[in-house]
Amino acid sequence: MSDVYATRRGLLRDRCAAAGNTAALITRPANVRYLAGASPPSAVLLVGPDGEDVLFTVGPPTGEADEGRLDEGLRVSVLAGPGSDAAVAAGDMAGSLRAESLAVEEHHLTVARHRALRSVAPGLRLVDLGAAVEQQRLVKDEEEIACLRIAAEIADQALGELLESILVGRTERHLALELERRLVDHGADGPAFPTCVGTGPNSGLSRHRPSDRRVEEGDFLSVCLGANYRGYRCEIGRTFVIGTSPADWQIELYDLVFAAQRAGREALLPGAAYREVDHAARSVLDSGGHGEAVAASTGHGVGLEIDEDPQLAPTAMGKLDACVPVTVEPGVHLPGRGGVRIDDTLVVRPEADGGPELLTITTKELLAL
Amino acid sequence: MSDVYATRRGLLRDRCAAAGNTAALITRPANVRYLAGASPPSAVLLVGPDGEDVLFTVGPPTGEADEGRLDEGLRVSVLAGPGSDAAVAAGDMAGSLRAESLAVEEHHLTVARHRALRSVAPGLRLVDLGAAVEQQRLVKDEEEIACLRIAAEIADQALGELLESILVGRTERHLALELERRLVDHGADGPAFPTCVGTGPNSGLSRHRPSDRRVEEGDFLSVCLGANYRGYRCEIGRTFVIGTSPADWQIELYDLVFAAQRAGREALLPGAAYREVDHAARSVLDSGGHGEAVAASTGHGVGLEIDEDPQLAPTAMGKLDACVPVTVEPGVHLPGRGGVRIDDTLVVRPEADGGPELLTITTKELLAL
Repeated sequence: MSDVYATRRGLLRDRCAAAGNTAALITRPANVRYLAGASPPSAVLLVGPDGEDVLFTVGPPTGEADEGRLDEGLRVSVLAGPGSDAAVAAGDMAGSLRAESLAVEEHHLTVARHRALRSVAPGLRLVDLGAAVEQQRLVKDEEEIACLRIAAEIADQALGELLESILVGRTERHLALELERRLVDHGADGPAFPTCVGTGPNSGLSRHRPSDRRVEEGDFLSVCLGANYRGYRCEIGRTFVIGTSPADWQIELYDLVFAAQRAGREALLPGAAYREVDHAARSVLDSGGHGEAVAASTGHGVGLEIDEDPQLAPTAMGKLDACVPVTVEPGVHLPGRGGVRIDDTLVVRPEADGGPELLTITTKELLAL
Repeated sequence: MSDVYATRRGLLRDRCAAAGNTAALITRPANVRYLAGASPPSAVLLVGPDGEDVLFTVGPPTGEADEGRLDEGLRVSVLAGPGSDAAVAAGDMAGSLRAESLAVEEHHLTVARHRALRSVAPGLRLVDLGAAVEQQRLVKDEEEIACLRIAAEIADQALGELLESILVGRTERHLALELERRLVDHGADGPAFPTCVGTGPNSGLSRHRPSDRRVEEGDFLSVCLGANYRGYRCEIGRTFVIGTSPADWQIELYDLVFAAQRAGREALLPGAAYREVDHAARSVLDSGGHGEAVAASTGHGVGLEIDEDPQLAPTAMGKLDACVPVTVEPGVHLPGRGGVRIDDTLVVRPEADGGPELLTITTKELLAL
């Protein structure tokens, strides 16, 4: 399986070659992991023009599962000193390669490290790699999608079990901790992100840290969680009503958000513009009179990071490809009352193959619990 | 209480004034929080030479407790656009102040943002602020120490409760999750860092992510956890033996690490060099024949970050002051067998006041559980 990493580095190398004899220094952890199989703390990856790739780490890799499984075919240089900067060591080596320039991730590398690189390799021209690795990561291979599928299954299981338990009287915090425990029980490396539980006036928010508020009869209860499985992260969000009969305003709001989310899902096709998908969902919410209560984007890519390219937002440029996994997560929050958020992770597939593959299969029907 | 933040910003302003008419742009989240009371995601703080300080945030502050409580006397500029860079907006405003230069945190600011700043304020000279705010944060005031005291108490309580429960047969993961739940139950904002539980061959490691290994009779069991209380984080680490009678090698190793940790604690005095404290602990481990199995440092500062200046390490420069809180956490790990780590958080106090104030008071006697 080490071939997949060598192949990815090869593609990056080809891209750099098109820009001249360039080596590349990868410092963003998710990008290091994508290309090397693992990203130990403070590790950086040098991709050389002639295939002389090296992972520089500070201290020995601990072999901890959440760093990933290192590509066995990749050379590793271990720096012993506690003050060592792996980027500087990489720059030093880059200076000795055939490369005329070194492409760095200017959106990640600090000014201080950039200066240190310049001083350790003054003959090397430093250029910007830009988001080259992030772009490579957009389209997932079937193994990556398999990990996302398992991560989604784990999240579905954890959520399903919670719904069978008593919810009234429990705090948002405890429900979140319970969900995270179940994620781990079902095989996740850990939660994909801090689990979000909001009840009553806290429901329907896109970002809400679980508080000590207790679930009450008549509340909307919003839950958003995700599993990290072998580094791959997906998410699911659902909103429920507590008690036997939802109020009319709750049914109306739920139907609106459900329709918006369905419109977003149905817009997911190869060739669809990111902003079109956002517009599909947003315009449904607008037509229901809730345009202003809505988040900045309808969804985002997932993979080694829970929030990666593409952004499904009004200002986003670009179009979907098959095998790009994204979330579709519109919602409406009415301050003081609460609201609804419905969030799925799906993989874009050709229409001929049945359209988008839904990974998070927990029912989206409004459940009264 | 908003005075404390204004005072801190004033001290930073004075420091910048000594270097000429300089404004300062603070981007590191813990530093923003220290000076502004809160650090919403992506927020940056502009400290102007004439007191015109502004916090730039992207999207409204959510009021989430873990961001902190914003200084009410501080002006806030909210950027609406999803693609907005608060640093660029700050640079734009800095260009309109009396300042001739803008000091930035080069060890945090990315090359890309630095370029964006240069292009939005071409007349402003960008200089390096260095670790000025980190240095200000070294010595804690009594309110900060009070938060650390409470954080330590919470961690002690969580650990104490766990020790009263059955441990044999439970996995490292479950024990860690249990500890984190108890931290929150006892009033923590959350864990200070991912709780570390290692049993048997996993014991005594300085970094170990809890696995599915189950606690067995005869194991060493190492636990390291901490609470985050109002942003202030401290840590405690203890090692226990499971079962009724420790083996001779376990008693011997425990006594050695205990002696090393005590030597480290006793070296904590105002004026003591960081490297002296490290040496005090390290030389005890050396004399016991375990010098090479030891981590790169004996301890580190704590505060708004769990790992901050000073580093108690062989290469560290500098001396302790009163009211600097640090950890003392030597340990020995024998691959395949396990080991011992003992970790306290203490506040340096003058000898006349009784020496260092121990915050983490769980017994360090070797307990058989």
